[in-house]
Amino acid sequence: MKVTVLLSGGIDSTTCLALAVEEFGADNVIALNMHYGQKHEKECLCARKIADYYKVKYYEHDISSVFKYSNCSLLATSEKEIKHESYAKQLEELGGEGTVETYVPFRNGVMLSIASAIALSLEAGQVYYGAHADDRAGRAYPDCTVEFFASMNQAVQEGTSGMCCLKAPLLYMNKAEVVKTGLGLKAPYKYTWSCYEGSEKPCGTCGTCIDRANAFKANGIEDPAL
Amino acid sequence: MKVTVLLSGGIDSTTCLALAVEEFGADNVIALNMHYGQKHEKECLCARKIADYYKVKYYEHDISSVFKYSNCSLLATSEKEIKHESYAKQLEELGGEGTVETYVPFRNGVMLSIASAIALSLEAGQVYYGAHADDRAGRAYPDCTVEFFASMNQAVQEGTSGMCCLKAPLLYMNKAEVVKTGLGLKAPYKYTWSCYEGSEKPCGTCGTCIDRANAFKANGIEDPAL
Repeated sequence: MKVTVLLSGGIDSTTCLALAVEEFGADNVIALNMHYGQKHEKECLCARKIADYYKVKYYEHDISSVFKYSNCSLLATSEKEIKHESYAKQLEELGGEGTVETYVPFRNGVMLSIASAIALSLEAGQVYYGAHADDRAGRAYPDCTVEFFASMNQAVQEGTSGMCCLKAPLLYMNKAEVVKTGLGLKAPYKYTWSCYEGSEKPCGTCGTCIDRANAFKANGIEDPAL
Repeated sequence: MKVTVLLSGGIDSTTCLALAVEEFGADNVIALNMHYGQKHEKECLCARKIADYYKVKYYEHDISSVFKYSNCSLLATSEKEIKHESYAKQLEELGGEGTVETYVPFRNGVMLSIASAIALSLEAGQVYYGAHADDRAGRAYPDCTVEFFASMNQAVQEGTSGMCCLKAPLLYMNKAEVVKTGLGLKAPYKYTWSCYEGSEKPCGTCGTCIDRANAFKANGIEDPAL
């Protein structure tokens, strides 16, 4: 059985890759990085290093043209600035629930569909992706919810006559548990990048930098990428 | 309310467009053509003419790179020849059920995901697509089944927090009923193209040419594109 892993170059997808390699062996794992038009190339450079570390096949796919009409703050084409505050604070400003400004329109649906199509062509029967419980708090990212995953997985299975399915092994873990799982598998977190900005060093103050710092802190260790 | 219609340039999507224009008015309809790497450009040229006829906004999007690893016979990159026989005959050869060689891996999932992302960016809340009952006979095209549509629609609604949904108004019609519906709306079928080959005139012998001819025959009229 061959599997495809969506690999952004962050903590979550790297943990997914570690799990897939553990279960299926590096020879049967294909890492797939998608460039969606983000403001920097850091994640992609990290994804390459991580795929290289694991000696898995590695593909890149550019989907930035899908989002050329969007004004999401993560995109290079948007003049909006990325907010430098925690997701908790952003959700509070939204009245407790709502999509955050860094939600790229249906990005995970697009990525999972394309990954399934590519997986089928490469004779891989599963697609791994790294959504976890913190992503869906307050429906900040609606394409990370359990309901989205369940229906998307059903759509992929139906639409491929069962030749492909989705796996989200981190779906019921929070970010601290994701890091704990990855540390247990010796995932090469030193090569990962989470920050939404593309400066030389992580900004430390965007939503994902704050989440990352808290996850390492909860595990009582220093972030190996800092 | 604005809506996006997936417009290939064939009979089914043209009927969808006719229905959407009837319901929402041309000013509120966006036609979206996707080039998936097929062997010819005929469909795209037809889609442009049809969008122009209806005076709706028109976008084109190239997804051919998604299928560059596939060997499906419809693709320009495949050396496989397109079969010149009816779907009924092809299904018989598959033992009554199975995906046909012209199934492009999870193409409709990819198209619907991307169309949903683009619709969201353009502030359109619905995506129309033209799957009908004949497409799913014997699961020839698994991404045209009722089950696929239902789960994909659920995934889009969940993954966009209800900001977008899918509509498949032809889902319970056979091809003859689709043509009947379009004729009632004076859909410009003379501009449509169905043939999988890209010759000057339709081949008349591929699965989709045979289906099309039967649908016009069932309505007792000549094909206006011939």
